[in-house]
Amino acid sequence: MPLDYIFDLAGTLVFAISGALAIREKEHDLLGAGFTGFITAIGGGSLRDILLDSYPLVWIDDIYFLYAIFLGLLLAFLLPKYLSKLRKTFFLFDTLGIALFTILGVEKSLSLGVRPEIAAIMGMFSAVMGGVIRDTLTNETPVLFRKEIYASACLAGAILYLVLNYFQVDRNLNMIISIALILMIRLVSVKYKLSLPRLG
Amino acid sequence: MPLDYIFDLAGTLVFAISGALAIREKEHDLLGAGFTGFITAIGGGSLRDILLDSYPLVWIDDIYFLYAIFLGLLLAFLLPKYLSKLRKTFFLFDTLGIALFTILGVEKSLSLGVRPEIAAIMGMFSAVMGGVIRDTLTNETPVLFRKEIYASACLAGAILYLVLNYFQVDRNLNMIISIALILMIRLVSVKYKLSLPRLG
Amino acid sequence: MPLDYIFDLAGTLVFAISGALAIREKEHDLLGAGFTGFITAIGGGSLRDILLDSYPLVWIDDIYFLYAIFLGLLLAFLLPKYLSKLRKTFFLFDTLGIALFTILGVEKSLSLGVRPEIAAIMGMFSAVMGGVIRDTLTNETPVLFRKEIYASACLAGAILYLVLNYFQVDRNLNMIISIALILMIRLVSVKYKLSLPRLG
Repeated sequence: MPLDYIFDLAGTLVFAISGALAIREKEHDLLGAGFTGFITAIGGGSLRDILLDSYPLVWIDDIYFLYAIFLGLLLAFLLPKYLSKLRKTFFLFDTLGIALFTILGVEKSLSLGVRPEIAAIMGMFSAVMGGVIRDTLTNETPVLFRKEIYASACLAGAILYLVLNYFQVDRNLNMIISIALILMIRLVSVKYKLSLPRLG
Repeated sequence: MPLDYIFDLAGTLVFAISGALAIREKEHDLLGAGFTGFITAIGGGSLRDILLDSYPLVWIDDIYFLYAIFLGLLLAFLLPKYLSKLRKTFFLFDTLGIALFTILGVEKSLSLGVRPEIAAIMGMFSAVMGGVIRDTLTNETPVLFRKEIYASACLAGAILYLVLNYFQVDRNLNMIISIALILMIRLVSVKYKLSLPRLG
Repeated sequence: MPLDYIFDLAGTLVFAISGALAIREKEHDLLGAGFTGFITAIGGGSLRDILLDSYPLVWIDDIYFLYAIFLGLLLAFLLPKYLSKLRKTFFLFDTLGIALFTILGVEKSLSLGVRPEIAAIMGMFSAVMGGVIRDTLTNETPVLFRKEIYASACLAGAILYLVLNYFQVDRNLNMIISIALILMIRLVSVKYKLSLPRLG
């Protein structure tokens, strides 16, 4: 099993946990939480694959993704308080997850033959749209509109990956650099409460 | 015409009516009500077929589904007060509709070659996602998060069908038993106001 | 370059501008505005093509649509106040945009071999669903439910086009007449604040 397959599964698990915990304060019960966890984990990648006509969808084809989601939901159900206390650890995992999903999304899009501009958008979509769909379903203002740097960090990482890829930088090195950029932008912007300027 | 084709059409008609009536109290006019009725009727099955790459979508391929929707909308427009008084009859039809959509969704998914775990999810999606999309578009908290047992009943029926199918129970008998389970869970949970426990 | 290709690009640009400006009053920053502009511009056509299994999606296949969107977003970012002052000019362009998207959507659907009833729905979807998705994501009540005549005008134009097409009216003449009908219904209904009757 290659390393990024394992990371992909781990990212899916983390997304399922954070999705399920995201609605704790709302009036939802177990299946509602499971549903939002599920959507958060598979939404972004599914949207990307539907837009690119790439079938079968990963989680439908490879049962291990479903198992990763179930495991994540189980952890969220059994240990919600414990996991909530791990907020910082979790934030790090979540950020690692979006960084990884972004770059894997870019790579998959390129492998399907689309132009780099499209691949950058698809990379960002892979990482953020699961959360956007979840927030839309639960009537939250999507995180994308609240914590702007979230999506911008993904876009910046995706573009860096594409530039380095154009200059034929080694793939593994490129992944590490691009993921590091996303992590750095995200961590710095959260630490210093940075945000993008508003319109007009 | 096989019996479940007729039931499928009837379920579509009932979903169109309940979708159109669902927004009566809101500030919507005729086309708005028609639109939500339409989405409620075709949303779940369309999402399932898009996720499974099964084309053409049923309502695009078979014009009778569109006619069933138009008939449902027409009834909702002409007889809104009469239909609203039939609340109990309606609830029964609606529940029959989701039960049937669940099992037909499971069967279609299996026929497309997916694993039983995926077929169970797709069966539930077929039944509930039309209502979820409708509620999301009209800025309601989706019914899925308010009346939990709704989706759980579908999932339980889907799993029962898959288990009995594994043990090669006759298909018609299996359908009747699984649909009966969904009806029973739903009716009992509504009568006794049961709900699933919450998270954490 | 045929004329309707140019109009299609221009409509995309206008939709991107109006989508980005639509959320100015909300607490969104630059990428949020860009995201909603993007969704508004590509949402309707993408949904139509996904429902009809017509791939690749136009904006993924033809980079000029992405450039039109970027140009629209750039204008919205650089000249938001100026563009807002042009409200009337803008309204006209927006209405031209939805009229054109409707008829092009009908034509594309027919060319994919669907029945006229489906083509009429797909034409309306092409024009209005981008705005519906945008409003849903930003937690607005979709414009479809607030300003009813919006979608009705598209539907009326789509049906007129199909009727004239059935009687083999010349395509260019048909386009002009059908687009004119949509423009007229929309302008008259806005001027006289007309709306469809409500349900029940």
